[in-house]
Amino acid sequence: MSPNIESASPPGRRERRKSETRERIFLAALRLFAERGFFRTTVEDITEAADVGKGTFFSYFPSKEHLFGMMHEVQLSKVLHAEAEAKTGDLPIHDVLRQFMQNIAEEPGRSQLVARGLLATVFTNEDIRKLLVGTLTRGRSHLERILTLGQERGEVRRDLPASAMARNFQQSTIGTLMLWSLDTPSNLSRRIDTTFEIYWSGIKAGSDRAENLQ
Amino acid sequence: MSPNIESASPPGRRERRKSETRERIFLAALRLFAERGFFRTTVEDITEAADVGKGTFFSYFPSKEHLFGMMHEVQLSKVLHAEAEAKTGDLPIHDVLRQFMQNIAEEPGRSQLVARGLLATVFTNEDIRKLLVGTLTRGRSHLERILTLGQERGEVRRDLPASAMARNFQQSTIGTLMLWSLDTPSNLSRRIDTTFEIYWSGIKAGSDRAENLQ
Repeated sequence: MSPNIESASPPGRRERRKSETRERIFLAALRLFAERGFFRTTVEDITEAADVGKGTFFSYFPSKEHLFGMMHEVQLSKVLHAEAEAKTGDLPIHDVLRQFMQNIAEEPGRSQLVARGLLATVFTNEDIRKLLVGTLTRGRSHLERILTLGQERGEVRRDLPASAMARNFQQSTIGTLMLWSLDTPSNLSRRIDTTFEIYWSGIKAGSDRAENLQ
Repeated sequence: MSPNIESASPPGRRERRKSETRERIFLAALRLFAERGFFRTTVEDITEAADVGKGTFFSYFPSKEHLFGMMHEVQLSKVLHAEAEAKTGDLPIHDVLRQFMQNIAEEPGRSQLVARGLLATVFTNEDIRKLLVGTLTRGRSHLERILTLGQERGEVRRDLPASAMARNFQQSTIGTLMLWSLDTPSNLSRRIDTTFEIYWSGIKAGSDRAENLQ
């Protein structure tokens, strides 16, 4: 793709095409990771499956690991959506958070091998670790605002800081995803259901009763 | 170590010595993993630090990764202890589980690098993955008995199966450990405190009220 040809297209169309190519590469990669595992999938495999040249691949993603940056954007857009939904006040915070926990587990939970590949990369690649920590920190600030709204509306307990409950949401979700990815095949969505049920019982208004302080 | 010399020692003493050597290797390895990271620590580094020959190392651990088998034994002994404590009925289940969650996070949480090394190995080594799944399954059966006792004594909610709450305990703990290990340095024990507070609020008797079913 020469910059001259690119600049001849109207900006909107060019941006849309770039975004489509990016997504095609990403989806091809996810499919291959699921079939062969992260480590056994090469950049060549991905470019072939996505029908793009290696140069195109590298213009979007400096390395195979950087495909995860795209995943992070996808995940962040979900928490932004949940926050916007919470702000309208149309739904109880319970419903917003329940749907969000399911949504956030959906992409990394497409297959156990994809999830294992994603998690392995976090522990073995310093750039990806920092990327994840950054994304979790940003995600947590939005979750915190949702939980604060829940506290203000009397739906969420007030004796714990919203930030602690936001962190717990992430820990519970990632812990569920992690153990699901390692285990014999099972339904992730049902596991997330149970995780959310216990999480919500733990943070809803009225859960901070004297018994906890024994 | 020749079998002839070994068999000359009284069995009790021989067993004790073996167990001491095993532990010395394990502790040296954990220290090195914490200092250098799991992948940068070689078997030679470990044998030197533990002052044993390579043959001795391999007679206890077929590979560096197998050091984790020892970790699994240590962790299983903790849940057995918690179960025994729960059976006496001397302490509320709340106290037994709170202490157990702190205990279980202690060894893998000695350092962030140790925890990351442990977790990386789970995702990149198939033997270790199976070992972890086996240990978690065994651990969960003991946790389930503790939670069933809690249900019988009216301390734990009865509308969820004890097995689901046992799994959730593991997910919450490992999720807390995982995010702690990746993040900037912080106090793991305090994070576990919060995790337990929310977990307990979510599973204690009386948490299964109508509001959850909205």
